[in-house]
Amino acid sequence: MMRSLFAAFLLAAPAPVLAQSAPAPLPQVPVVIRTLQAAALEDHLAWKITEDLTTEVGPRLAGTAAEARARDWAVARLRSLGFSNVRIESFPITSWTRGAESVEIVGPYPQRFVIAALGNSASTGPEGITGEVVGFDSEQELETAPEEAVRGKIVFVSHAMSRTQDGSGYGFFGGPRRQGPSVASRKGALAIVIRSIGTDYHRNPHAGVQKFADGVKPIPAGALSIPDAEQLQRILVRAAANGGKPVTMHLTLVSQTQPAQSGNVIAEVPGRDPSLPPVLVGGHLDSWDLGTGAIDDAAGLAITTAAAHRIKSAGRPLRTIRIVWFGSEEIGLFGGLDYQKKYGGQPHHAIAESDFGAGRIWKVDSKLGKGRESEARMLQSALAPLGIVPGSLEAADGSDIGPLIAAGVPAVGLSQDGTHYFDLHHTPDDTLDKIDKEDLRQNVAAWTTMLAVLAGPIEPEPKRGKQR
Amino acid sequence: MMRSLFAAFLLAAPAPVLAQSAPAPLPQVPVVIRTLQAAALEDHLAWKITEDLTTEVGPRLAGTAAEARARDWAVARLRSLGFSNVRIESFPITSWTRGAESVEIVGPYPQRFVIAALGNSASTGPEGITGEVVGFDSEQELETAPEEAVRGKIVFVSHAMSRTQDGSGYGFFGGPRRQGPSVASRKGALAIVIRSIGTDYHRNPHAGVQKFADGVKPIPAGALSIPDAEQLQRILVRAAANGGKPVTMHLTLVSQTQPAQSGNVIAEVPGRDPSLPPVLVGGHLDSWDLGTGAIDDAAGLAITTAAAHRIKSAGRPLRTIRIVWFGSEEIGLFGGLDYQKKYGGQPHHAIAESDFGAGRIWKVDSKLGKGRESEARMLQSALAPLGIVPGSLEAADGSDIGPLIAAGVPAVGLSQDGTHYFDLHHTPDDTLDKIDKEDLRQNVAAWTTMLAVLAGPIEPEPKRGKQR
Repeated sequence: MMRSLFAAFLLAAPAPVLAQSAPAPLPQVPVVIRTLQAAALEDHLAWKITEDLTTEVGPRLAGTAAEARARDWAVARLRSLGFSNVRIESFPITSWTRGAESVEIVGPYPQRFVIAALGNSASTGPEGITGEVVGFDSEQELETAPEEAVRGKIVFVSHAMSRTQDGSGYGFFGGPRRQGPSVASRKGALAIVIRSIGTDYHRNPHAGVQKFADGVKPIPAGALSIPDAEQLQRILVRAAANGGKPVTMHLTLVSQTQPAQSGNVIAEVPGRDPSLPPVLVGGHLDSWDLGTGAIDDAAGLAITTAAAHRIKSAGRPLRTIRIVWFGSEEIGLFGGLDYQKKYGGQPHHAIAESDFGAGRIWKVDSKLGKGRESEARMLQSALAPLGIVPGSLEAADGSDIGPLIAAGVPAVGLSQDGTHYFDLHHTPDDTLDKIDKEDLRQNVAAWTTMLAVLAGPIEPEPKRGKQR
Repeated sequence: MMRSLFAAFLLAAPAPVLAQSAPAPLPQVPVVIRTLQAAALEDHLAWKITEDLTTEVGPRLAGTAAEARARDWAVARLRSLGFSNVRIESFPITSWTRGAESVEIVGPYPQRFVIAALGNSASTGPEGITGEVVGFDSEQELETAPEEAVRGKIVFVSHAMSRTQDGSGYGFFGGPRRQGPSVASRKGALAIVIRSIGTDYHRNPHAGVQKFADGVKPIPAGALSIPDAEQLQRILVRAAANGGKPVTMHLTLVSQTQPAQSGNVIAEVPGRDPSLPPVLVGGHLDSWDLGTGAIDDAAGLAITTAAAHRIKSAGRPLRTIRIVWFGSEEIGLFGGLDYQKKYGGQPHHAIAESDFGAGRIWKVDSKLGKGRESEARMLQSALAPLGIVPGSLEAADGSDIGPLIAAGVPAVGLSQDGTHYFDLHHTPDDTLDKIDKEDLRQNVAAWTTMLAVLAGPIEPEPKRGKQR
């Protein structure tokens, strides 16, 4: 039912609504691809990988023993699935890990909040620090504040992030986390707490990385849950109205950094012609420490791996499919940078990454380059029955593959619906139960389709031993 | 629109659906009551009380300094609203407070969970305890387990609570919390962790009281968040399948008990005839410590007080309205018991309590006793335009007023929609942002209507000084 509905949609509006005037006809999709796609809508493997990784390893913060266990788990699983050239490619990082964390309003309205330190936060030490809170409604407001309003105080920065399907709110409203700590430190702040970059209303803070700008002294930096951030806003307003009483906060954010090892896990489906550049797909193996990293990014690994497994099970594609489970994405895209260092000089037929949760794919963008429009349009045509809108032929993005895309490597972007992604992103709530199995299957079907189009015709493996 | 829709519903089905055959006509509602009801649908006071209490006091656990601040806050607010006979009636309790809490699976799949101790839990001490986990799917299964399966282990009990509008799942599925700790202790368990009694999927455990049965040794008892409980179930199944490896847990639940003071806060709208028994309305002032107690039960105080304030503003009712903000409800209904001790021997015209969140009222039950059917049916008739179904004339319930109802005091039950109540109940997520302002207004309108019916005709206050 779902697919015939989508087929009707395809006939009615194959191009974005705003460009309906002259939709060019899309190419006919080979039966073999339609067949693979239909079978992938019954996929169980992606769920199994997601469930097993999040249960047997759980949280797997970059550079920790848990991330190392995840790599070993990954190698065993990828080998047992029959992939080739399964290996770990190690690289050194500086790990950051959290310890005890708490925050309380000392006065005028004593109460505790829920907080999580941001990545690379300085440590307050176990005794914590106490200071007066000064509030700002945005990172821009903090930027323009005079130093004397900030010096020696604990800065609080809010924002007004709202839901978007494409996740664009994350870039725009992420300023308090990305730039806020450096700006506050430059103005002499004691510490900074921000409203979590998220769209939910649960007492679960959103972790996330920030990097102090060069030459800026690290200060303690944490994210309050959104209900707590709104409570702090109310308290600041009341205290100001009530004779301008100062709002005093006691903040404890213990953390440490140390040299550590991380690594990418790589596996392949060898192509019939090893001289041809591979198609790279993947996601990241590390997760934040608060949840089990189900949507960020066990699902991405699972979707892309299940798709590659379907191609492998169908026969041998023309081109090699390379699966990369990147390490240490969350704290600085280290896995992507290591891959670029080792393989960036070699050609790739296309690269694509799944790292935006487990929501349905609603749009396909690509940037395959000159002379490959027919391939890009075949991709659009083949994906449309899954309810996927043809997007740009001049755009693609990704986090770990971002540097390669920037360097001009051909890329595809399968955009997941992010309407609810930032309810869970980087929170303790990123757990298996948040994934819808049918949505996950639609993802597997889309990635299987994409690989079937880009990795080239699949030929059955020659049978050995037995005759038909 | 809402009200005319409900009026249509009333004409079609004034009685429960299953008893449609012979609906008796409901009595005509006096214009003065309809007018008060309509005005109450524009109420702002209930929101204001809820916002102010949850912001300026925040969490207010029974017997703590925060509950004492809440009483002082309550007296000031009730006096400033112009109520009479505002007072605190103190009583002693044994308070229970939590300290550091953590839980981790040591093996075979190391990871941390989120937990909250249950009320009256024994303390593990700061070093915590380590033990093998034995899992049960229900409290009944634990009951029938042989002692040797439990002795020296950490018991885990799950359950299958689902949503119900009337909250009946709480009674049925609450066994792991209410009886589980005593049963586990009797069988020699080291400690017990349960799946939170709730219906959400967030990493927020549901606190709640339990009481060790007489003669039973207190053991540490905590509630895991629901995603964590499901993760533990998966881990137990995998470990058993994987060669029967034991699942080992390290559990830290620090807590202490000590003698403390609590109290009820009482205020009145004096009736024209002080010799007549009063109408009692209220909720409870204390809350669990994890959230700010917005739906449990700031909203209940706010709804009932805003309704009484509307009656007072309209003039003087025949009967006194007594508002009671009960103390220490959560840890054992102590406020209700203290009220019963002091006033249980005196007649009450009716008693009613709002303590089931801030969802819309969908049903009215009452148990007013013989010879008062016309009053009860007027109540049904007057509430129906708010979308409230006439329920039983032989039932009413409540927690703090429960002992009085059991003793035969006439009572009314305005049932709130509890479909989402157990997503938030006793969790850190019980915060202001969860309340819908329009739902809150419908509650105020219902309680105003109920008081207008039961407290008797309101007469305008004689004007003083100025002439009309």
